[in-house]
Amino acid sequence: MLRQASSAALSLLATRPSVACSAVLLPRSSAVLGARTITAASPRASGLFEGLVSGSRNCLAKAITLVESTRYDDKDDASELLSMVLRSSSIRQYKTQDNFKSTFRIGLSGAPGVGKSSFIEQFGLFLIERGHKVAVLAVDPSSARTGGSILGDKTRMEFLSRHDDAFVRPSPSSCTLGGVARNTNEAILICEAAGYDIILVETVGVGQSETMVADMVDIFTLLVAPGGGDELQGMKRGIMELSDLVLVNKADGVLAVPARMAQMEYISALKFMQPVNALWRPEVLLMSAAEKKGIDEVWNSMKLYYKTMYDSKSLFQRRAEQNKTWMWRQITEELLWRLRHDPKVKASLLQLEESVKNGRITPGSAAEQVLHQFIADQQVRP
Amino acid sequence: MLRQASSAALSLLATRPSVACSAVLLPRSSAVLGARTITAASPRASGLFEGLVSGSRNCLAKAITLVESTRYDDKDDASELLSMVLRSSSIRQYKTQDNFKSTFRIGLSGAPGVGKSSFIEQFGLFLIERGHKVAVLAVDPSSARTGGSILGDKTRMEFLSRHDDAFVRPSPSSCTLGGVARNTNEAILICEAAGYDIILVETVGVGQSETMVADMVDIFTLLVAPGGGDELQGMKRGIMELSDLVLVNKADGVLAVPARMAQMEYISALKFMQPVNALWRPEVLLMSAAEKKGIDEVWNSMKLYYKTMYDSKSLFQRRAEQNKTWMWRQITEELLWRLRHDPKVKASLLQLEESVKNGRITPGSAAEQVLHQFIADQQVRP
Repeated sequence: MLRQASSAALSLLATRPSVACSAVLLPRSSAVLGARTITAASPRASGLFEGLVSGSRNCLAKAITLVESTRYDDKDDASELLSMVLRSSSIRQYKTQDNFKSTFRIGLSGAPGVGKSSFIEQFGLFLIERGHKVAVLAVDPSSARTGGSILGDKTRMEFLSRHDDAFVRPSPSSCTLGGVARNTNEAILICEAAGYDIILVETVGVGQSETMVADMVDIFTLLVAPGGGDELQGMKRGIMELSDLVLVNKADGVLAVPARMAQMEYISALKFMQPVNALWRPEVLLMSAAEKKGIDEVWNSMKLYYKTMYDSKSLFQRRAEQNKTWMWRQITEELLWRLRHDPKVKASLLQLEESVKNGRITPGSAAEQVLHQFIADQQVRP
Repeated sequence: MLRQASSAALSLLATRPSVACSAVLLPRSSAVLGARTITAASPRASGLFEGLVSGSRNCLAKAITLVESTRYDDKDDASELLSMVLRSSSIRQYKTQDNFKSTFRIGLSGAPGVGKSSFIEQFGLFLIERGHKVAVLAVDPSSARTGGSILGDKTRMEFLSRHDDAFVRPSPSSCTLGGVARNTNEAILICEAAGYDIILVETVGVGQSETMVADMVDIFTLLVAPGGGDELQGMKRGIMELSDLVLVNKADGVLAVPARMAQMEYISALKFMQPVNALWRPEVLLMSAAEKKGIDEVWNSMKLYYKTMYDSKSLFQRRAEQNKTWMWRQITEELLWRLRHDPKVKASLLQLEESVKNGRITPGSAAEQVLHQFIADQQVRP
């Protein structure tokens, strides 16, 4: 399975030779996309776009950095780049062994130590052999808080990250979890425009990161490892219920028997859960990334899921709903951010929160005061 | 257990005889509360307050109606009434057989048909016998949507609702679930000021109502009934994980054996859950409201919970956190309400949502457009 991948790589949209990503130097221009012409006001955005669709990894990385940027003067370019990306998304074809008719976004969650990196490495190489191009993105709650990162480290996926048909993006190292997740949501679109048809989004079982990842992927996969027989105890609430597929990794050597026991436990735990998806009953599969066993069964199950969702038109319905969810999540987050950073609100918020906690004022009255200050402050601004 | 309750009822704050609730006719005055004097600008609020603390059910009902009111000219009075209520809350004593040092807020959830009303009727009468005063409130998602109500119906609790030491409030019949829940949150404070030391808040397993109720009570109880042996399947996600106590009702007659089987199932399902509370391991108890069996065990378990939480100071820490949660929930809900009802936003929102769903624009760009319209519109207002 580690043989070099066949070169059935996608040659989508490559109407011109590799662009050197000298985006900012290009004149105001139009990017030609197959039969369509997209006029763009920003040379930077159109340069990046042309570069990424023609396969420049450098442009791809820069494009993601642009949509991740929090700099005010990057906003217009980012938004223009994203428009171009969205308009390009309908005119693509995927030439792989699997005949998918669109990209496939796969979420992967699991606690540290269950072997996410090894799995992604093996799974990614397996997919590349089948003709896919694989992008790996990460939503990392630790990077949101500390600026450090526990996911998406290229060195953890040595072979995959060096492969021509793979793109491994380390976690963004800034801002809020919501911000990180929003960026990842947009990075998916960029990678798809660059011809990556399988997008793996990994996260770790902390905070709200799974819910956010589940809201940006087509299938949500939970990776677990066999433990002392009670690995289910104390499992983070809700995570199993989000999962369309549970993979028990490390089903090899001395852990083969514990892995089968864990499989049974997860199967019976799933019985207590309401399925997220009316069309799909979650499966629990055994595999071993170390021994490269079971990867094909995992992929068969995912393909069946894809087919079920695609044929019933649920795949795109789900994406449409996800987009709406993201729009409202971002409106809410941005409004609350503005409110918290409003000078008048800021000046009184701590004391109000204290009064609310101590029961000196009702939550409702405090909320009214905060809103009154915020709205009044918006009104006096120029 | 249906004997008439002992008259160890609370005689709190009753420094003056019953007030006829002629609130609006009173002159601007001060309400005398034990040693404290609370000056009030609104005769309506202070009249209602004096009435409710002296035991007028009429004033209590009117006070709740006032805080539930969405009329703009009720806002100031409501907020003044609530301030008086909050300031009065520290000077109260509870003379019951249980020697609680504060009120006890009990959430109760369960699907229609499990016997919530019968349980509340029996449980309420049991508590009154022990010297408590019991208020029953409801957070009813059906009333939020349809204006109809499936909870809090007085006729369902015939004996309890006619009892002097009980107050059964039907569901409010208006506005959003968030609004209904906010009102209930404030109605709890009103009932406590009126001397009710046990507040039962019932809800039904639909939508987000449990999360909201769990955020306003000290203990969250789930009532279930034995079914066909697989009653756990398809259980609403998250609800068991919110529960500090699971009560299997109808453990009588032919259902005695199925009830014990259900108890076992719930016990093993709970093993898969991370406990909400580090100090408390949820229990699963059998009971029968119809045969009045097991009510005392339920109360013993709740008392142990109360003592555990009170002694560790967690009871008030939790209430403080809940207050903060409510403040932010209300800020968020109100901000989004204003945004949705902003004329400019309203004019373009539907079309933007469509474009986002169809992928013609990214959720991020749509969010920015909506916010821009909203903020700009606030700025031009007088």
